Amino acid sequence: MSLTDDDRRAIDELRAASHTTRRATVPALEAVLFEPLPVLDHGFVRVVDYMGDDAAVVQAARVSYGKGTKSVRNDAGLIAYLMRHRHSTPFEMCELKLHVKLPIFVARQWIRHRTANVNEISARYSILDREFYVPADDQVAVQSTANRQGRGDVVAEDVADRVRTQIDASGSAAFDLYDALLADDGPSAVARELARTVLPLGTYTQWYWKIDLHNLLHFTALRADPHAQVEIRAYAEVLLNVLERWVPLTFAAFVEHRLEAATLSKGQLAVLRRRLAGETVDLAASGLSAREWGELATVLGEVTESP
Amino acid sequence: MSLTDDDRRAIDELRAASHTTRRATVPALEAVLFEPLPVLDHGFVRVVDYMGDDAAVVQAARVSYGKGTKSVRNDAGLIAYLMRHRHSTPFEMCELKLHVKLPIFVARQWIRHRTANVNEISARYSILDREFYVPADDQVAVQSTANRQGRGDVVAEDVADRVRTQIDASGSAAFDLYDALLADDGPSAVARELARTVLPLGTYTQWYWKIDLHNLLHFTALRADPHAQVEIRAYAEVLLNVLERWVPLTFAAFVEHRLEAATLSKGQLAVLRRRLAGETVDLAASGLSAREWGELATVLGEVTESP
Amino acid sequence: MSLTDDDRRAIDELRAASHTTRRATVPALEAVLFEPLPVLDHGFVRVVDYMGDDAAVVQAARVSYGKGTKSVRNDAGLIAYLMRHRHSTPFEMCELKLHVKLPIFVARQWIRHRTANVNEISARYSILDREFYVPADDQVAVQSTANRQGRGDVVAEDVADRVRTQIDASGSAAFDLYDALLADDGPSAVARELARTVLPLGTYTQWYWKIDLHNLLHFTALRADPHAQVEIRAYAEVLLNVLERWVPLTFAAFVEHRLEAATLSKGQLAVLRRRLAGETVDLAASGLSAREWGELATVLGEVTESP
Amino acid sequence: MSLTDDDRRAIDELRAASHTTRRATVPALEAVLFEPLPVLDHGFVRVVDYMGDDAAVVQAARVSYGKGTKSVRNDAGLIAYLMRHRHSTPFEMCELKLHVKLPIFVARQWIRHRTANVNEISARYSILDREFYVPADDQVAVQSTANRQGRGDVVAEDVADRVRTQIDASGSAAFDLYDALLADDGPSAVARELARTVLPLGTYTQWYWKIDLHNLLHFTALRADPHAQVEIRAYAEVLLNVLERWVPLTFAAFVEHRLEAATLSKGQLAVLRRRLAGETVDLAASGLSAREWGELATVLGEVTESP
Repeated sequence: MSLTDDDRRAIDELRAASHTTRRATVPALEAVLFEPLPVLDHGFVRVVDYMGDDAAVVQAARVSYGKGTKSVRNDAGLIAYLMRHRHSTPFEMCELKLHVKLPIFVARQWIRHRTANVNEISARYSILDREFYVPADDQVAVQSTANRQGRGDVVAEDVADRVRTQIDASGSAAFDLYDALLADDGPSAVARELARTVLPLGTYTQWYWKIDLHNLLHFTALRADPHAQVEIRAYAEVLLNVLERWVPLTFAAFVEHRLEAATLSKGQLAVLRRRLAGETVDLAASGLSAREWGELATVLGEVTESP
Repeated sequence: MSLTDDDRRAIDELRAASHTTRRATVPALEAVLFEPLPVLDHGFVRVVDYMGDDAAVVQAARVSYGKGTKSVRNDAGLIAYLMRHRHSTPFEMCELKLHVKLPIFVARQWIRHRTANVNEISARYSILDREFYVPADDQVAVQSTANRQGRGDVVAEDVADRVRTQIDASGSAAFDLYDALLADDGPSAVARELARTVLPLGTYTQWYWKIDLHNLLHFTALRADPHAQVEIRAYAEVLLNVLERWVPLTFAAFVEHRLEAATLSKGQLAVLRRRLAGETVDLAASGLSAREWGELATVLGEVTESP
Repeated sequence: MSLTDDDRRAIDELRAASHTTRRATVPALEAVLFEPLPVLDHGFVRVVDYMGDDAAVVQAARVSYGKGTKSVRNDAGLIAYLMRHRHSTPFEMCELKLHVKLPIFVARQWIRHRTANVNEISARYSILDREFYVPADDQVAVQSTANRQGRGDVVAEDVADRVRTQIDASGSAAFDLYDALLADDGPSAVARELARTVLPLGTYTQWYWKIDLHNLLHFTALRADPHAQVEIRAYAEVLLNVLERWVPLTFAAFVEHRLEAATLSKGQLAVLRRRLAGETVDLAASGLSAREWGELATVLGEVTESP
Repeated sequence: MSLTDDDRRAIDELRAASHTTRRATVPALEAVLFEPLPVLDHGFVRVVDYMGDDAAVVQAARVSYGKGTKSVRNDAGLIAYLMRHRHSTPFEMCELKLHVKLPIFVARQWIRHRTANVNEISARYSILDREFYVPADDQVAVQSTANRQGRGDVVAEDVADRVRTQIDASGSAAFDLYDALLADDGPSAVARELARTVLPLGTYTQWYWKIDLHNLLHFTALRADPHAQVEIRAYAEVLLNVLERWVPLTFAAFVEHRLEAATLSKGQLAVLRRRLAGETVDLAASGLSAREWGELATVLGEVTESP
């Protein structure tokens, strides 16, 4: 991640400002406000604004005149209850606004979450910086055999080096053509909206993205999942850290009741009941498919999930 | 509107608090933060939280690192441009949270706007206060003959008094039954979720309501419209005032390009062109329906719209 | 539920029509198309239109040119997989349109689901029929002591009779005033939008409601839940039947992986693992709250949930 | 656009099927059902399913038991009224489902419309076909000087040929690397999710896309606009044709009150009033900005908008 001097100055200026407000304020989040948190080779997440805190969840759940909170312990209990029973509307009462720099193929996964507000830089209007994603050595992996859509073992270092070099050369060639088509933005430049079509899906873009806490938790749970592509998981990891700073009680309930919880089907519950009653149940006797059987074993820690 | 001492104290406590923040802050809105702004006989609007300001609209439109603003004049120009060309996403980057007390028949109109977050008090869980809407004398009117769904002339004062008395007696009788069914919330009380079914549609409810600026403008434009029911317009009037405090540049552009703008159809534009070319056009020659003809005359200030 | 002769004729006419189409068609749902399915004392659900079937879910998941299905067995497997892993977008590719008649207090719960399309009759424009909800004897119950928002034991028959009579009298009195204010819809009638404010929350309204299959499943799961109010559960029961007719494979997966599934928290899973390893774990040693402990026992069928 | 034999067979099979239904059916749309309608060099739009017709809009607006329509003329009048006054909910009661093949840079503009359902092919799961967009000669244009984000004059034919050749070579090189990285999908293949990052933004993707009529009109109005990029306008043109087949009354009202209508600001209306009153108003006296002045002149047909 590299910032121009102008960008750095603009950020520093925002961070130096200090205002007085009656609104709920979260010092742990203020500490990183406006600061780019690096992700991948050129990306970042910047927290640009926020509304509400843990107490605001409680306040909305109680539709109260005041803060709606008697004690941290009561708040934690109510928040856990709301999370467990999927009462999502109180969590919608907090809001986060981010400035994100990310490769276009990540942006295409990200944008599938519709309940958010987005302003993206326009490559019809602006000329894009020469920045595209090249995976680090330890991210160059073969196709997974277990998972039709994921990554398997990392390749040998020399293979990784070759792949990285090829991706880099391909991206550079595309940007060379882009520059040539734009002809220094001169009068014979092909329209930007046309020139950009040659750029690779690894090209970095930027957007402002605003979302409520409930939908942010949902987004983060999906994108921090081991089945998500590793590049978007890198962003989800940063979001987990931001959540912990911003709403620690909600974050703890989220880990307990969502991230590390599991949903068991009617058939899986039936197997559990039989086993707890002392019966030995094998796959054949379980009535489950091999896939569901394996998922149950994974949840119970009886096998380790292969990547 | 009447507050309990506890509610008043809770509000005063929130208003007395002062925090330091790096976030965009709007003193004119802070001035009324948490304070109930009265509406109708028992209702109110309280601004509970906000995110962003006029500069945040510009910042998002430019996807900038800093405030995204060079001067107030530039900001005003860009905001007017965005408003005129219905580039709505930058306005979605600001957010407002309200606590509203309102009659249920108003709440039922309000909730039709889906792009908002809501937490309402539950009459399954809580016992409702004995508060229901009785129109003021100057709001008791006959059915409009011009408008199939609106209000016409105000009735004579003695008739209005009688109507008010009847509505008041009817609501009181319903609340008497409600109280009897709940039997002082004792062990023989009928379930609250059942008892509340006898209460009138004029009964007051409360909710927390959170919405982005773009959708708030849309909501306000619809509900401040002369065709909206006068009771919800009373709330829209308060929202207009809140908007002016919060985002004065956006508010000015909203008045210019939405509230006091008009959309003319292809046929209406054709009539205009003929008239500007010197032709005298009457209804018969216009090709317009009588209704469209009348709407055009109203927009051009050539007739006054009847209520 | 009573229909006017005109309404009955209009329905019969629609049911008698027969068109030829290339679209996916579901005979079991066509069988009840347009027919009012009765709910509560005056309500109904009418299926008015539908788009897609089980195969359409598969077709969308595969983004295929054809039906996207090789065999019913493969389809069932894929649909169960999608349901289990919460891949919701293929289920959004089917759509259902209903005409529903329902008490306003039920409508207010129903409308909280935002991802749907709604057209409701307007009591500003039309005069409402004299129909309001009076609970059947076996639905008159005291406030639950276990559940802060639900219904407990049914009251004695004579008490139920009295309550029913009171509710009926209260609603009749409100409708009498409504009629008087409207003065036979004559020139001295108070505006309909004002007169309707005296009507009880039990008054029946009607709307057209359209929703995609994914959101319909979510709605139905929430509203068929034992914690939902019994009156809206009556509607959810009809929807379950409609779902079974329309998309039998999706319905079966929904029962297996949602309706009769359970989500266990990190702490509950830890208790399970210890028990399966042979350890005896009691509440004190479990690290769970009493509430979570009880919920786990209920899921495992070791206690029966009290109402 | 080229289809495999399997795809063509699957389509023919769907088109050959004939079912009996009680649902509203539109023969003019059935005529093109499932058939790929070509767009750009490799793209298409296929109508895969639909719900409702013009009468369904009327039926929902009236919340009626029957078709809700007395005559085509009445329906046309009501639909025009609803369109003019932006009563959007009845139009939400119709639904369209499409299968679309489109370049990724078009897909990225398209997906910004959030009120729709989408299932896209996954390049993590599948290997993409070697198809990418190369503009036709008459689409290779220089950057517009009037419009910061659009296309200006078409370049000379020899320049266009060179540009096309460069874009084609660049895309081919990227697909060559893609193929090499995938190594014939063999065991040493780099993960598909990684390999696809080198492909250009002009690469074709496919999705199922489902949307209600109100949102489809909004989408089409925005994307058929002269300021939209010409490549997405090519898709909007096909959608206009589909709309005309499907809902001819709604389409006519849409053209009259949206596509060829114009919104005039408070200031522009004031100028109009003065001119109609006989005053000669020039820019200086108008109180308008030069931009607004020019837009008014364009709407009134007094100048021709430059592209």
